[in-house]
Amino acid sequence: MKFLRIKSKHVQGILEPNSPRKYQFQRFPQKYKSHVRKEVWDLSENSAGVSVSFSSNTSRLLIKWTLKNRFKMHHMNDVGVNGFDLYQKKNEEWHFISAGIPTDLKNETYLFKGLQKHLKHYRIHFPLYNTLTSLELGFDVNSDIKIINEKSPPLIFYGTSITQGGCASRPGLAYTNIISRKLNRTCINFGFSGNGHLEISIADILSKIDSAIFIIDCMWNIDKKIVLKNTRPFINAIRSKKNNLNCPIIFHEQYLSNLDHPDKKFIKSVVEKNMLLKKQIDNEKYKGSKNLHLVAQEGCINKDTEATVDGTHLNDLGFERFSHHLIIKLRDIGLI
Amino acid sequence: MKFLRIKSKHVQGILEPNSPRKYQFQRFPQKYKSHVRKEVWDLSENSAGVSVSFSSNTSRLLIKWTLKNRFKMHHMNDVGVNGFDLYQKKNEEWHFISAGIPTDLKNETYLFKGLQKHLKHYRIHFPLYNTLTSLELGFDVNSDIKIINEKSPPLIFYGTSITQGGCASRPGLAYTNIISRKLNRTCINFGFSGNGHLEISIADILSKIDSAIFIIDCMWNIDKKIVLKNTRPFINAIRSKKNNLNCPIIFHEQYLSNLDHPDKKFIKSVVEKNMLLKKQIDNEKYKGSKNLHLVAQEGCINKDTEATVDGTHLNDLGFERFSHHLIIKLRDIGLI
Repeated sequence: MKFLRIKSKHVQGILEPNSPRKYQFQRFPQKYKSHVRKEVWDLSENSAGVSVSFSSNTSRLLIKWTLKNRFKMHHMNDVGVNGFDLYQKKNEEWHFISAGIPTDLKNETYLFKGLQKHLKHYRIHFPLYNTLTSLELGFDVNSDIKIINEKSPPLIFYGTSITQGGCASRPGLAYTNIISRKLNRTCINFGFSGNGHLEISIADILSKIDSAIFIIDCMWNIDKKIVLKNTRPFINAIRSKKNNLNCPIIFHEQYLSNLDHPDKKFIKSVVEKNMLLKKQIDNEKYKGSKNLHLVAQEGCINKDTEATVDGTHLNDLGFERFSHHLIIKLRDIGLI
Repeated sequence: MKFLRIKSKHVQGILEPNSPRKYQFQRFPQKYKSHVRKEVWDLSENSAGVSVSFSSNTSRLLIKWTLKNRFKMHHMNDVGVNGFDLYQKKNEEWHFISAGIPTDLKNETYLFKGLQKHLKHYRIHFPLYNTLTSLELGFDVNSDIKIINEKSPPLIFYGTSITQGGCASRPGLAYTNIISRKLNRTCINFGFSGNGHLEISIADILSKIDSAIFIIDCMWNIDKKIVLKNTRPFINAIRSKKNNLNCPIIFHEQYLSNLDHPDKKFIKSVVEKNMLLKKQIDNEKYKGSKNLHLVAQEGCINKDTEATVDGTHLNDLGFERFSHHLIIKLRDIGLI
């Protein structure tokens, strides 16, 4: 076999791939380390939403990867946290092929073998919750390999553990990855587990990205005080750059997985928080902010009560519904 | 708080609850130990598909459980493998309330607290892949508790890891549990991970159950040789008891998660195996076997390629589709 060491320049889903970084697939370049809280920085090293696309006629594909640490979660499996999945593009649609199931810090597994040597177009989604310290792909010695740098005006997602991908059963089922495949658009995942605090420091970084659509999904990680204090400055910070004066910014309400849940206090607190967010957005619109949108939670996952693993984090049913819902809303708004 | 130790007599989803057993929630009574292979027996101790239903006006519910061993899987999370989930019945529908997330061999967590003291109807689904050595529920000291023994002609499922519940994100999302809630029917889960071998020893045990519908979903665990050798004797063994001469028996084809998968050899082998199963079933019908049905795999999960974690085991999207599909088929046949 011959091996290709995958580097920053090969992948989608990271900011400024050509800027120096400590870990190849950390989502921010190194220069932003001092701009964000330590918790955010540490999580930003996780490869959530990162992928590599390539075409090859190899009959077998080996994947070798090393993880930074032995991170495990009780409500999410190891494939989503520490593993990979492979898709094939065929007739303009992506089809799931196989998963790279991790067993330890160092992992090595075939994603396929024994295939016919026809040229195919693949994408591999990276672990949602760990940091990769190395990644190599192994191909037939005599095969052709072409890295595909998929470039399109990006959708930028900023949010919580749910945005990061908790609790998809495999990386490709995080909602940002589903949307990326369904729309054939670059998506960048700035989900920071427990740390989607609607921070101005993040808006400052996001403001540097041109021609993007910004989707802000922080509500599970913030309280009413932060909604009140940060919504306006956050919008203003993104809009502070000339190129982003009128860029689309979409806020998403906090969803409720069970409107009939007997914990009425919790339901009430979420409803009130969502109302406060709506008020902030309405105020900004009234003051003249263009291309600012709020997506209501109604109907996003709660067709029944089955779409979460724990009442909060989406399972695969939830991610399928959430991504479908967001695509519909983006179409309704006229952004895609 | 006051505590209730849950025992065999309290639960649904086990065979002959009043017969002696080593572990309270093992699916077979002890007397069948010598009737099945060791692998099947060991797996039969797992509490897959077992549940307890009760009504109570308690404001808080504590769950304390002890697991037999530290069983973990890389492609399934700990909640599905070792944990619980709680549903509430309201307006004749079941609503997910919360999950009991395991962290160790001994676990203790609130499933809710701070609720209004109204009488509510609950169900708790048990771990899909471990064996419980003890289970206690804790209620307000002054609360009312009534165990509900839900009895209805049962649906009996015999099959593989997928039947057992691999890889649902929480126990309630195994397809047998979804079907049980949607139809308000008792379901018994005889899924044995890797060991759904269409064995006559299992048919002998199943034959003792009266007024049941038998759903046989073994195809992932058997090859063409076993399909050819065991299908007829399996049916005959169930039908050997007078009460089951004409009981409904439904075989399910092996599903394909990606019809366009580039591994054509694998696709071909499944298609051929399914054709062989159909031939066996058709032969039996021709010979006069009544109430024998085959459910084709087409459309059961493969609306897209997203319904599995690894190409084989269903994720929550897959279980939602599979249960919906089976309910439709049972209706089409006229059995429900």
